[in-house]
Amino acid sequence: MDQTRFVIEASEAESMANDSGLTVIQFLPSLVNSAKNLARPPISNYHVGAIGFGSSGRIFLGVNLEFPGLPLHHSVHAEQFLVTNLSINAEPHLDYLVVSAAPCGHCRQFLQEIRGAPDIKLLITSDGHDKFNPLSHFLSHRFGPDNLLDKEVPLLLEPHHNRLSFLRESNNLSNGICNGNSSKIDGKLKHAALEAANKSHAPYSGSPSGVALMDFEGKIYKGSYMESAAYNPSLGPVQAALVAYVAGGGEEYDKIVAAALVEKDGAVVKQEQTAKLLLQSISPQCEFKAFYCSFGALNNCEKA
Amino acid sequence: MDQTRFVIEASEAESMANDSGLTVIQFLPSLVNSAKNLARPPISNYHVGAIGFGSSGRIFLGVNLEFPGLPLHHSVHAEQFLVTNLSINAEPHLDYLVVSAAPCGHCRQFLQEIRGAPDIKLLITSDGHDKFNPLSHFLSHRFGPDNLLDKEVPLLLEPHHNRLSFLRESNNLSNGICNGNSSKIDGKLKHAALEAANKSHAPYSGSPSGVALMDFEGKIYKGSYMESAAYNPSLGPVQAALVAYVAGGGEEYDKIVAAALVEKDGAVVKQEQTAKLLLQSISPQCEFKAFYCSFGALNNCEKA
Ligand SMILES: [Zn+2]
Ligand SMILES: [Zn+2]
Repeated sequence: MDQTRFVIEASEAESMANDSGLTVIQFLPSLVNSAKNLARPPISNYHVGAIGFGSSGRIFLGVNLEFPGLPLHHSVHAEQFLVTNLSINAEPHLDYLVVSAAPCGHCRQFLQEIRGAPDIKLLITSDGHDKFNPLSHFLSHRFGPDNLLDKEVPLLLEPHHNRLSFLRESNNLSNGICNGNSSKIDGKLKHAALEAANKSHAPYSGSPSGVALMDFEGKIYKGSYMESAAYNPSLGPVQAALVAYVAGGGEEYDKIVAAALVEKDGAVVKQEQTAKLLLQSISPQCEFKAFYCSFGALNNCEKA
Repeated sequence: MDQTRFVIEASEAESMANDSGLTVIQFLPSLVNSAKNLARPPISNYHVGAIGFGSSGRIFLGVNLEFPGLPLHHSVHAEQFLVTNLSINAEPHLDYLVVSAAPCGHCRQFLQEIRGAPDIKLLITSDGHDKFNPLSHFLSHRFGPDNLLDKEVPLLLEPHHNRLSFLRESNNLSNGICNGNSSKIDGKLKHAALEAANKSHAPYSGSPSGVALMDFEGKIYKGSYMESAAYNPSLGPVQAALVAYVAGGGEEYDKIVAAALVEKDGAVVKQEQTAKLLLQSISPQCEFKAFYCSFGALNNCEKA
């Protein structure tokens, strides 16, 4: 198996499982160790791998990421990486989840953002047996989206568009780490960040946001902020974009040379300062700009 | 009941319960609503109250706090407030916990830092019945301190001293929000922050820290960073100090005029920038300084 691939197509998953004389579901646990090898946990050195099986028949990998020099809430757990990976690839649903160690409460909570979460089947390989149990077994009496949202509000993997567009004044409002003349942040990067913000799952605060990263070769990686009903387990937009970077074959973080953040003007949840802090820490030379947009008609869109 | 009291002494708890013809444990749920009234959730307006019964016979209150203008990971849940309140008051153990709504996974995880956490008895008043269940029922197959620490390492409410002391150079290394001549940050505040850092629970990263806040009347409030085995649910030192502030009768946050942070020189987990961000947001006039210290002999202690 290619060590840098984080998505396995349905047909390939079938044939890999068949070759082992297994069903695809039975085959999932055998992938956990190769996922663990892709983890980047320089603080704990505790490698975690997560394998997800989606309703499309595809298999997704998740690994944990840690960022020294900052508070620990910046960390991305393997399960959150996996859910972000599903979201990036427009997977409609997570049906089965296999993890190398017992998921922490924070992740069990984050998973609740998926419709029907209590029925997701979970297997912990370190438990030493091969039985799947529903997520409701691991987080009974859950606090979840039901406690705060109407049933018709789209949940994490469900298609939606936040209808954000740029204010005319957005350039005046933007803040860069470095204000040199030869900015790497062009209209393409800015609009990639807007696209990510429009896919952001932020029904609790109404403060969607998105980040687009650009590496030294000009390749763009997008990440959408994903909120949790329990607030604290929410995944920041830089973290989501770093999942896209790692899953997309990105190597050292300091190869990221530019980043654009899009968030709402006057939002109650503001990512800018925290996004800047994380980016400065992992890639000190990265140019960063925040852009503010408004909710509304698309003809309000500023030409970049 | 006094609306601003967050600790009820054992003798008073007994007599309050007796007056209602109840045992103290049966009496706990009746306190949840008055706790809810003390919550400060300006983002969600979702008030949560938590009541804890400690092994000393005292009753503790916890409420949720939210901070607009920042990412949601800054929020303090009622259960975390409660555990911080226990820690501030040197309570040896949490035996019973009553909450107004189902605890989120993040809090179920944070509670694991208490020795014997799976046996803490939990009751959710919104469930509409009066039966306590062990915490293990709400977070089965837990990930916890056992997965990462030796059994003899002190856990969250257990006495310990991190043996931190100031480097001689600490003043050179410190950074203030404003560098005026008439600093409010004196040796007393700095040493209060050191004391908090020495009580910090940071066995996973080895990066303890502490914050001391001073209000306009010169009253000091201390908070110790408290780490979670699952990293992300860790409670920052400013958050812990704000729990002390709220529980200690503090009113608006902008009455906080000075803050000192103490953390380890070269720590892998650094609080400074994030602490500054939160303090600037809730009290723009607050003077802030970070001090770095080293692990080691007390004769290394710098005279302030
Ligand atoms: Zn986790
Ligand atoms: Zn909670």
